[in-house]
Amino acid sequence: MTEHRPLDPPASTTIATIANDVGVSVATVSKVLNGRGDVAPGTRARVEESLDRHRYQRRNRRSSSGGGRVDLVFHEFDTGWAMEILRGVEAVTTAAGLGLSVAQLDGAHRPPPRWLDALLADRPLGVVFVLSHLAEVQQQHLRRHGIPFVVVDTDSATSASVPTVGSNNWNGGLLAARHLLDLGHRRIAIISGPPDVLCSRARAAGFQSAHEEAGVPIDRELTRYGSFSAGAGHAHGLQLLRLADRPTAIFAGSDIQAMGVLRAARQCGLRVPEDLSVIGYDNLPVSAWTDPPLTTINQPLRDMAGIATQMLLELARGNEPATSRIDLVTELVVRESTAPPAQPR
Amino acid sequence: MTEHRPLDPPASTTIATIANDVGVSVATVSKVLNGRGDVAPGTRARVEESLDRHRYQRRNRRSSSGGGRVDLVFHEFDTGWAMEILRGVEAVTTAAGLGLSVAQLDGAHRPPPRWLDALLADRPLGVVFVLSHLAEVQQQHLRRHGIPFVVVDTDSATSASVPTVGSNNWNGGLLAARHLLDLGHRRIAIISGPPDVLCSRARAAGFQSAHEEAGVPIDRELTRYGSFSAGAGHAHGLQLLRLADRPTAIFAGSDIQAMGVLRAARQCGLRVPEDLSVIGYDNLPVSAWTDPPLTTINQPLRDMAGIATQMLLELARGNEPATSRIDLVTELVVRESTAPPAQPR
Repeated sequence: MTEHRPLDPPASTTIATIANDVGVSVATVSKVLNGRGDVAPGTRARVEESLDRHRYQRRNRRSSSGGGRVDLVFHEFDTGWAMEILRGVEAVTTAAGLGLSVAQLDGAHRPPPRWLDALLADRPLGVVFVLSHLAEVQQQHLRRHGIPFVVVDTDSATSASVPTVGSNNWNGGLLAARHLLDLGHRRIAIISGPPDVLCSRARAAGFQSAHEEAGVPIDRELTRYGSFSAGAGHAHGLQLLRLADRPTAIFAGSDIQAMGVLRAARQCGLRVPEDLSVIGYDNLPVSAWTDPPLTTINQPLRDMAGIATQMLLELARGNEPATSRIDLVTELVVRESTAPPAQPR
Repeated sequence: MTEHRPLDPPASTTIATIANDVGVSVATVSKVLNGRGDVAPGTRARVEESLDRHRYQRRNRRSSSGGGRVDLVFHEFDTGWAMEILRGVEAVTTAAGLGLSVAQLDGAHRPPPRWLDALLADRPLGVVFVLSHLAEVQQQHLRRHGIPFVVVDTDSATSASVPTVGSNNWNGGLLAARHLLDLGHRRIAIISGPPDVLCSRARAAGFQSAHEEAGVPIDRELTRYGSFSAGAGHAHGLQLLRLADRPTAIFAGSDIQAMGVLRAARQCGLRVPEDLSVIGYDNLPVSAWTDPPLTTINQPLRDMAGIATQMLLELARGNEPATSRIDLVTELVVRESTAPPAQPR
């Protein structure tokens, strides 16, 4: 991407071209390109505008030297989940002799502009974003500075031109629902993640497809969206299990959320899996140690992060990726939290 | 530390002094100081020897500029636990406008020499080590390059001169045992961490002190050491609970290890807390969501990491820390996994 983009500048566009165009010194243009703070905002804006107009693209100085560092940016640090991503990225950067910087955006899905400037000043070899929405203008900003980037598990707000590694969330929802339907369940609830996160909707769609192929109608009252936290699983679980016609199975949005559902089941005096089946999502290490051990959908977070990082290193070498979007396969992991319903309906 | 160490070189010691002494160019000395790889091993050794003999200490170029990056080095990524440390460090570096690099040593407690060279080449503002033993020669190496470092929760293998933030593990062991003794337990098992990690021995010592003050003898058969993993908790738990005279309470080395003990109790047909009390350690978020919710010892990992990082930034500014070792307080968190024994002995 760095070398072969259709918007590559003509060979004649140099820093001097930009300086001449704007009427500032070459040093000033250089400061803007390097993300330095000591440039007046108005001057910076004019230089940025000229860089855009001339389609100037800065070469990444580190990409050919083999050294350097990769930046890993989370929208927030989520216990367990973020650590799997970190492990996947770290394995690849260490093997490549690269450093790894980590940042998080306090839950924001879009990096603030000032933050991007700081990142540019630090000149990473490239950036791995996790669940972050990059605005088109921010993507241009990174491209102009020759900093390649990839996204792990993004939603559709990121344009198709951004290299992305995800997993097949639709298939995950399909597998979970099929498993429960095959066991004989007919009233199955789903607590997915937040509705503004595409993976939540993809899982819910897969869940629905499995019902359609089995000819089982879905009760909309049994479809919930919430955060991926244990607290959300607990609150939604209590509501669902107190319904007059309660579900016999619950498909949770994460393993941690499923732990909250297990708590709700105990509080309602329901045994898992005898009275209620529960499926988690992610297959975090902790899911093997809950009571009972969770049946779950394996989301290969570590592999996703590793492949995204390898893709990033290819981009940093100037090679185009074979494809801009890779979805790894999700798989059903059967443990002890699912069983046929006590009284099949 | 950077500025006021007793071993500070005479003002007249410059790179030229070293180059002249060894009989190499100034550029070669500079390469060695910057951790570059393109110096013959023999030459590098002679330069290093001369730097040591002249007590040469390189100034950290970034420390006065306000920019830069902190390196955070784990001996390994441990699920949950490492994330708490990472969060604590990140909060401080972000507030200070600094970047954060992360590395792990694949379980090694001592960084390999080659790894230190790579770190030096990257010129961090300073390094936060987590549970890593630094050899004296490695400490000298960092000091010579003017890179301050602090240690989170180290054991006594690190010399007293290294700034360290830990928590009061002895007190943690004392509080856990006192709680169980106060409930009426008289046969209490302890599964601590590995015996070569000082915090394991400190907790076991606190556990013993509580027994001494209560006049309750300890059965050595009930004292176990193992890894902090769920699997270790499960294996030791099964052994302990299958003893003819089994314990009525188990104090685990970590919350994750305690999850393994909970599994062992279920397999032995024992209810927690009615038939067996279980205490964890750390107070990770997950400990509130186990079945039953774990009584545990709060180890303030995030605060420990934050204070260590603040200490590091002070060192990078050339200020001596008021004290080289800070231990934060540990506290008992009572939830639902502990109760009086069914039949007090």
